[in-house]
Amino acid sequence: MEKRKRIAIVGVGLIGGSLAIQLHEKKLSSKLIGVDANQEHARKAVELELVDETMSLDDAIVQSDVIILAIPVDILVKLLPSILDKIEQQIVIDLGSTKAQSIGAIKNHPKRGRYVATHPMWGTEYSGPTAAMRGAYENKAVIICNAEESDTDALEWTKHMYKKIGMHILEMEAKAHDLHAAYVSHISHITSFALANTVLEKEKEQQTIFELASAGFESTVRLAKSNPAMWVPIFMQNKENVLDVLKEHISQLTRFKESIEKDDNEYLLRLIEEANKIRKIIK
Amino acid sequence: MEKRKRIAIVGVGLIGGSLAIQLHEKKLSSKLIGVDANQEHARKAVELELVDETMSLDDAIVQSDVIILAIPVDILVKLLPSILDKIEQQIVIDLGSTKAQSIGAIKNHPKRGRYVATHPMWGTEYSGPTAAMRGAYENKAVIICNAEESDTDALEWTKHMYKKIGMHILEMEAKAHDLHAAYVSHISHITSFALANTVLEKEKEQQTIFELASAGFESTVRLAKSNPAMWVPIFMQNKENVLDVLKEHISQLTRFKESIEKDDNEYLLRLIEEANKIRKIIK
Repeated sequence: MEKRKRIAIVGVGLIGGSLAIQLHEKKLSSKLIGVDANQEHARKAVELELVDETMSLDDAIVQSDVIILAIPVDILVKLLPSILDKIEQQIVIDLGSTKAQSIGAIKNHPKRGRYVATHPMWGTEYSGPTAAMRGAYENKAVIICNAEESDTDALEWTKHMYKKIGMHILEMEAKAHDLHAAYVSHISHITSFALANTVLEKEKEQQTIFELASAGFESTVRLAKSNPAMWVPIFMQNKENVLDVLKEHISQLTRFKESIEKDDNEYLLRLIEEANKIRKIIK
Repeated sequence: MEKRKRIAIVGVGLIGGSLAIQLHEKKLSSKLIGVDANQEHARKAVELELVDETMSLDDAIVQSDVIILAIPVDILVKLLPSILDKIEQQIVIDLGSTKAQSIGAIKNHPKRGRYVATHPMWGTEYSGPTAAMRGAYENKAVIICNAEESDTDALEWTKHMYKKIGMHILEMEAKAHDLHAAYVSHISHITSFALANTVLEKEKEQQTIFELASAGFESTVRLAKSNPAMWVPIFMQNKENVLDVLKEHISQLTRFKESIEKDDNEYLLRLIEEANKIRKIIK
């Protein structure tokens, strides 16, 4: 039987807290240590029994076999080199939504091999330890980036962990990851934020929105509730890809605008029929 | 006990078919007659037992107490005057997503009072009789427009029907309806169509979208599967409001673009915090 590990979760919010639940349920951890700069979140994570105890990052590094980083990607890039400075043979795994900058930050670090860069494709629009959910990550994809730069044992344990919590693993170079993430995740969030701002700006009768909002509206706007502390650094770190997709999106919206302005039913029909092709991809 | 009525459903697709199920379950109908220009849909609606039988519109008008129109709004505007020409004391109810044009089309018709203009705020991205669902409309809002132009008995029965199938009723002038519908429904669909086109245009590796797509992406893009025959006329009939909201949306997206281009973290943070205010409205 696989020996269970002492696992530190740095950032016990939605992402880290939900992972902690799964690590315990799947018997991957002998002990779960929480680390959080937000003292209220740290306290809450213990109260909710997401982790066994909390301590400082330095103490957690010493007392763990595995250190999992579930923190905003700007803090990750700053923290990662100093964590690698301090470890012996611990495995360090991050769950960030962008990958090129964090991998770039420790490219030539002597402990590079202990680090495994991953992105589990799961989240909700809520945040903090109270948003942590049971059964998260199941049947979702996780991307492992630049796997060949990680030590074999670190990589193998990371894969074992993700399989055990029900994820299917894809491997990808960090650059390809950041490009695809812009399409399938980042642009959806920008669209939703901008849609919320549009409606809040134009529709002053908020009670009317509340009464009329249908499932379709909620579906497109729900991501607008997402945490800015998480998303600002994602957009900034993935600036080039995000801008590229965002410009295309504005240009696509402009086509809808022009077809309606010109009463061009044929063109509008073609645009919508084209969009319907998403059925092939999203069942 | 309220006498059950012979009800004709014109358009036995997602909207009309789902209503037919509810009308039967709530014992509002003594007979359900289907009318559909698409013979395959008509046949399917009988096979699925959404309606008891199908017939021509003219026959259905003669054999019904209530005629419910669940057809694309361009066809509705063309058909409505001729239906009013043919009725005696039947009630005519439409379920269209725009209201000003249909109401305008029969404004001075001698049978205006028999017509009740409504918009139940429910739908899915699927279409046709096979998309009809049980329990649709429950706990959703329905808007009745220009109620004072309808005869009292027609209005009262329509309200009775909607209450019986679990909807809460709002009354509104057609112009106000079309404005609010642009915010809480029409713009969401355009956003979703344009997002699908953006991703399909930029992301040539469709298998990658399929593997990586998370719940967030599916949520924002699912409306892009919606039926063009329904949505082209909605956008065109509500042109002025839709363009107004769409221009604001493009301008909001441009703010996101500019904040990222200029590495203006502060501004991007403010934009997202503003968007988070949608939490007040959508739980």
